[in-house]
Amino acid sequence: MDKTINVGLIGFGTIGSGVVEILNQNLDLVEGKAGVKIRLKKVVDLDITTPRGVEIDPKILSTDVSEILEDPEINIVIELIGGYEPALSFILKAMENGKPVVTANKALLAKHWEEIIKSSKMNNVRICFEASVGGGIPLLGPLNESLAANHIQSIYGIINGTANYILTKMTEENRNFEDMLGEAQDKGYAEQDPTFDIEGFDTAQKLIILTILGFGVYIKQEDFHVEGISKITQEDIKFTQDDLGYTIKLLAIGKMVNGELEVRVHPTLIPQNHLLASVRDVFNGIYIVGDAMGPVMMYGQGAGMMPTASAVIGDCLDIIKNMDKEVLYGPKYTQVKKIKDIKDITSRYYIRMTVIDKPGVLHEISGILSDLNISIESVSQKKRSEGGEVPIFMITHEALEKNVQMAIKKIDKLDVVKKESLFIRVLDE
Amino acid sequence: MDKTINVGLIGFGTIGSGVVEILNQNLDLVEGKAGVKIRLKKVVDLDITTPRGVEIDPKILSTDVSEILEDPEINIVIELIGGYEPALSFILKAMENGKPVVTANKALLAKHWEEIIKSSKMNNVRICFEASVGGGIPLLGPLNESLAANHIQSIYGIINGTANYILTKMTEENRNFEDMLGEAQDKGYAEQDPTFDIEGFDTAQKLIILTILGFGVYIKQEDFHVEGISKITQEDIKFTQDDLGYTIKLLAIGKMVNGELEVRVHPTLIPQNHLLASVRDVFNGIYIVGDAMGPVMMYGQGAGMMPTASAVIGDCLDIIKNMDKEVLYGPKYTQVKKIKDIKDITSRYYIRMTVIDKPGVLHEISGILSDLNISIESVSQKKRSEGGEVPIFMITHEALEKNVQMAIKKIDKLDVVKKESLFIRVLDE
Repeated sequence: MDKTINVGLIGFGTIGSGVVEILNQNLDLVEGKAGVKIRLKKVVDLDITTPRGVEIDPKILSTDVSEILEDPEINIVIELIGGYEPALSFILKAMENGKPVVTANKALLAKHWEEIIKSSKMNNVRICFEASVGGGIPLLGPLNESLAANHIQSIYGIINGTANYILTKMTEENRNFEDMLGEAQDKGYAEQDPTFDIEGFDTAQKLIILTILGFGVYIKQEDFHVEGISKITQEDIKFTQDDLGYTIKLLAIGKMVNGELEVRVHPTLIPQNHLLASVRDVFNGIYIVGDAMGPVMMYGQGAGMMPTASAVIGDCLDIIKNMDKEVLYGPKYTQVKKIKDIKDITSRYYIRMTVIDKPGVLHEISGILSDLNISIESVSQKKRSEGGEVPIFMITHEALEKNVQMAIKKIDKLDVVKKESLFIRVLDE
Repeated sequence: MDKTINVGLIGFGTIGSGVVEILNQNLDLVEGKAGVKIRLKKVVDLDITTPRGVEIDPKILSTDVSEILEDPEINIVIELIGGYEPALSFILKAMENGKPVVTANKALLAKHWEEIIKSSKMNNVRICFEASVGGGIPLLGPLNESLAANHIQSIYGIINGTANYILTKMTEENRNFEDMLGEAQDKGYAEQDPTFDIEGFDTAQKLIILTILGFGVYIKQEDFHVEGISKITQEDIKFTQDDLGYTIKLLAIGKMVNGELEVRVHPTLIPQNHLLASVRDVFNGIYIVGDAMGPVMMYGQGAGMMPTASAVIGDCLDIIKNMDKEVLYGPKYTQVKKIKDIKDITSRYYIRMTVIDKPGVLHEISGILSDLNISIESVSQKKRSEGGEVPIFMITHEALEKNVQMAIKKIDKLDVVKKESLFIRVLDE
């Protein structure tokens, strides 16, 4: 083992500290696998004075990124600063200088995929990003390699730990959304501005990456439906769970139907005996169906310092073992003929309406649904409050989304309907 | 794409037919990933006349294995005949002739690991065996690569579909063991001689492979505890489920405790909210804990024609992309200082005894337990039958296995004990 691989780390935050910690603790193991010596040659961050709680030689710390990007001795660049700029410029410069890159930056990949991959191919250097989706879970590697003999038929992912934590606690401890959001923030799971996690944008960015690797198409975030969990109430959870046998999860969905690809992020009713329903708390689970292997699921911690750093080091090893491997991301030829608009999908739907409790209300509502070709599987109005407001819960048979959207619009205009209605799609594997 | 890789397939049974089928259906996809043309040049089997239900050029069929092993144009050999001989000789000859090998032969790998790996290293050709454990589930690849930055702390696997099918049906449909075994045989899940699946030997062979890749040690089947599910009754399942909140699963366990490795196969009580408890029917689930990434689980179909063939083709792609990669299986340096004898493990235990229903029985039993330093967590005798036989169910606190074994021996010698007692270990993650 004479050869040494020099690694440059840009970004000494939480994940960066995890990378340093793993190299401190498990270097023997990693070098044994790599078959080369591995040296963390330089760590660059704007702040190099605040203690990170990990042992590091102060001499390798710097605030000058060119000490990584322009150092011909650096063989691999790890980018962990996140965000769009300057991360994008750093990554492009690294590849231009012939350095393979490891990143966990899902936002950047989701937004600038084409530019980044063009640079990777042009410079013939690899970029690895296992940590960008599902944190420490072996996911993108298996999807790209072990499952390579399969046409992927569908991907269903619980890939935002914060949203899953909130939904789990709402389900298991009967808490409401606002309470749980506050608690998630206190525990450090959710940011002070939680929009990104709660409204599905983080899930959407990760889904973009899964869609590339699974189906061979790149689709921008503005081109598919993204819906979060902030409108879900304790009532929705309780009724769908106790009366219908479902658990509500925020799902990333990529699904091929006759050559048309559905790409969408929204809360989804999942049957309680489906494995995805058992993915609890901050954990992630990604359920993938292939034409040969059928369903598989990968499960684990989708975030956090050490799990994510574990994936980053795994990527470094992949690069070391495969320095000159052809750069290929996802299937070479896509089977996708068209991206399907959410309005054209079909699904079963859970609908919650808030109406005045008086005779004839259900008659009005069911008339609207029937005119739009939507059949009711079951309907329930449990509370009584004569003349007052009560919730009606409904499950439809399979229906066309645009009809359901239209129906809800019409229903919400009825005099007897007192609040905006909510509908949640049901998992239809 | 000028280069062509010629593949030779030995064994045209169920999995072999699946391999042919995937190459028929998904060749574009596979070649796109491989970056080379792939040609199935020769398929060898003793029987080349019985129709397999897949399209194949009869000209490539042969009964003469030397047409694969001695053909210098064949680049990869797939061995799918199973069993020890002649599979071993074929694999060794292939590697001697410089041909990398893909196999699903867990029995052979478990028994002849050292010889096979010696030949692989000596001849500098790779042998891949993703399909040997967990069928189509991406498992060995991720364990060996994505998780390479982790010291593996424990592996808990449900890796025999037949046993899991039987236990699932016993749990969910209140069926008894003999009924379910018959049904599994009728459905083709279980062999006519089911010992291999039911008594844990198949699970043990797969655990040997997981132990090599996870912990870097090879341990022979006769050197660890293997126990099946044939003694589990409907009473055990019902009581542990309804009164204690557990599900019984046949588990393969590999677990590091202070540098000592526990390797064992036995039925195990799993808390119902643990993800492994949700692995139902013929599915497999492998739960792995690493020091950096924490727990991950891989789930999917552990057997069957197409899932297993999917893993075989995935291995072929791995070989094509990494023809000259250094041969490495598992961590280079093991952390294992000693293999722990089952008698020295500690666990909580479920114990079922069958006793005469009369005063003083529990006093006798609890005396034996207390003398051996075993504390009772709870005990229950629900049925009454004065002077007749009744079951007693018990859960112990953590105790030393050898004490529990000794206690059961003593208890079973009591006059008031009428049948052999059964104990089942509880999952202690």
